[in-house]
Amino acid sequence: MKFELFDRDGRTRARRGRLHLAHGVVETPIFMPVGTQATVKSMTPDQLRDLQVEILLCNSYHLYLRPGYETVARLGGLHSFMAWDRPILTDSGGYQVFSLSDLRNITDDGVRFKSHLDGSSHFLTPETAVDIQRGLDSDIMMCLDDCLGYPATQLEAEKSMERSMVWAERCKSHFEKTNAGGRQNLFGILQGGVFHDLRRQSAERLIAVDFPGYAIGGLAVGEPKPLMYEVIERIEGHLPDEKPRYLMGVGTPADIVEAVALGVDMFDCVMPTRHARNGWLFTRTGHIVIRHAKYKDDPDPIDTACACPVCRTYSRAYLRHLFAANEILSSVLNTIHNIFFYLDTIRRIRQFIEAHRFDELLAEVRRESPPVD
Amino acid sequence: MKFELFDRDGRTRARRGRLHLAHGVVETPIFMPVGTQATVKSMTPDQLRDLQVEILLCNSYHLYLRPGYETVARLGGLHSFMAWDRPILTDSGGYQVFSLSDLRNITDDGVRFKSHLDGSSHFLTPETAVDIQRGLDSDIMMCLDDCLGYPATQLEAEKSMERSMVWAERCKSHFEKTNAGGRQNLFGILQGGVFHDLRRQSAERLIAVDFPGYAIGGLAVGEPKPLMYEVIERIEGHLPDEKPRYLMGVGTPADIVEAVALGVDMFDCVMPTRHARNGWLFTRTGHIVIRHAKYKDDPDPIDTACACPVCRTYSRAYLRHLFAANEILSSVLNTIHNIFFYLDTIRRIRQFIEAHRFDELLAEVRRESPPVD
Repeated sequence: MKFELFDRDGRTRARRGRLHLAHGVVETPIFMPVGTQATVKSMTPDQLRDLQVEILLCNSYHLYLRPGYETVARLGGLHSFMAWDRPILTDSGGYQVFSLSDLRNITDDGVRFKSHLDGSSHFLTPETAVDIQRGLDSDIMMCLDDCLGYPATQLEAEKSMERSMVWAERCKSHFEKTNAGGRQNLFGILQGGVFHDLRRQSAERLIAVDFPGYAIGGLAVGEPKPLMYEVIERIEGHLPDEKPRYLMGVGTPADIVEAVALGVDMFDCVMPTRHARNGWLFTRTGHIVIRHAKYKDDPDPIDTACACPVCRTYSRAYLRHLFAANEILSSVLNTIHNIFFYLDTIRRIRQFIEAHRFDELLAEVRRESPPVD
Repeated sequence: MKFELFDRDGRTRARRGRLHLAHGVVETPIFMPVGTQATVKSMTPDQLRDLQVEILLCNSYHLYLRPGYETVARLGGLHSFMAWDRPILTDSGGYQVFSLSDLRNITDDGVRFKSHLDGSSHFLTPETAVDIQRGLDSDIMMCLDDCLGYPATQLEAEKSMERSMVWAERCKSHFEKTNAGGRQNLFGILQGGVFHDLRRQSAERLIAVDFPGYAIGGLAVGEPKPLMYEVIERIEGHLPDEKPRYLMGVGTPADIVEAVALGVDMFDCVMPTRHARNGWLFTRTGHIVIRHAKYKDDPDPIDTACACPVCRTYSRAYLRHLFAANEILSSVLNTIHNIFFYLDTIRRIRQFIEAHRFDELLAEVRRESPPVD
């Protein structure tokens, strides 16, 4: 993997870069739509390519349980299985497993958990997390980490960070042992909660292990937004400039703009796709909830400023009808719009960085985007 | 509307024709996928065009209740509302209303029924059925008829046929009164159950009213298949040669081939789309049920003989995974395959008619297609 960092905003810490991966080039900053079960819900790969999606995130936890990573491996890996020829990043499964609060038990060796599908028992270790992602054959895989919630005490955060750092070393070691073709890349994940000193220690230890990219984990887990931005701002200077930074699970379009201004390059979030299926549609001035009766006869598009194929073709009245009638096409069209909106935000981010005026986009977003929950 | 009848098989009664409608030309024999609520479930209009869908059927009953035909009319009619620029045929709503056995009451004037959505009371007459379809602005609209079930006595069938013929006259009369632009067409519908004499009377009375096309209604309602074919065979000679014949709600690919051999030109059925969502996939040698465990690691396409985009791209293993994981993309891909299969059958039907060897296709279908329920 090669990461070119070829431009900087100058006024903020925003950066323009380019990731060269086995399945193609990804421009940064980048947003990765989530394809949990080897499909971005309701989208065909053709539709994703038309939307100019450059890279997807898939979830190891779900694919490990169903259809099983051995099945995916037998069918040629995730790219072949789901007919997606562009890059894929897989998470380690850790976040999902840690979210199964009643069904899992953590030790220094790994996490024992019960499947949410059938209650069967499984044991996830740093080594098996790498093996699973080897089977999936993603372009970028993630280390298994101990995912802390919010709030947490400093002692809890320290323990979780310590364990995550040991696991990161074990992931790296197992990754190198199993490195057959050399096309995959393993990213490290920072932990340490909202404690700046722990975050800095985490960064130093990951850098000592040496990864081609660094993710900021354990944020967007319930802490106030200003605190999240503060953690990012204070850790950014401790991360190597020449490596990509990935803020996991974030966030709203405004969050992404804020984090880009703090030097983050990569993002993923279920928000555009999940909100789409619930009829929540993003616009430059906020959002609309398409089920509302006021849209019954509304001939306007979702957003008159939007150039997406849905806004160029369909009225709010039709989209409201599809939602009210519980039609599958409702999810399809809403998802196209919301992914387009996110990727359009990303395109604007890149343009403003290249124009060295990113502070203007930041000001616009702060002025016009109401909070999104 | 112009109907060109430009070729005949010769060995059977199969015909090749062409319908010229306001929104385009439709080759016959034709199969019309069903877009009940102004959407073919899970398909975008682009996907339907890619599949070479030439004409859709939409259901007046559903659209009358939701979003309401006045809403559709205000938004420019069904074509504009659902962004489908090719021809549309609408049914009258009669069949759906008559299927609400506990919720409707029939008189000579019309049918009082309760909405399946909210229990509200409505009255459908031959005149309102035309008004609704005027609002929808379909290329072809259908007369309101009294839809008989199976079995029924000769007396019941006669009464239902009589009422349908009176209603056909009223539809025609109201259609002419409301004929502003002249782009729509009204088809008559034969009734008479499985009684040949009643069917002949029905044909004569409809022909006396004079319609640009004739539908055969009241079949595929539970009667044995050989009886259905017999009714079609015996009525066909009583229908004008130069007008299109439409067999409503039929059927399997084999049924369509059989009916084409008896001189039928037009078909609609929910089977390809509904079966798709249930994981029932058509193949030249029958079907497969994609949820079966035996497909878990199967790298083959649904049908190795199929040239559809799904068979060219995805394994049975992936399609089985999507179905098992209850993913929306399962419905999308299965629907693409099944519609392609139906339209591919239609393309083969046309080729065999033009080659004047339709009996060979008929023999192949009788040999290779197991019954489909």
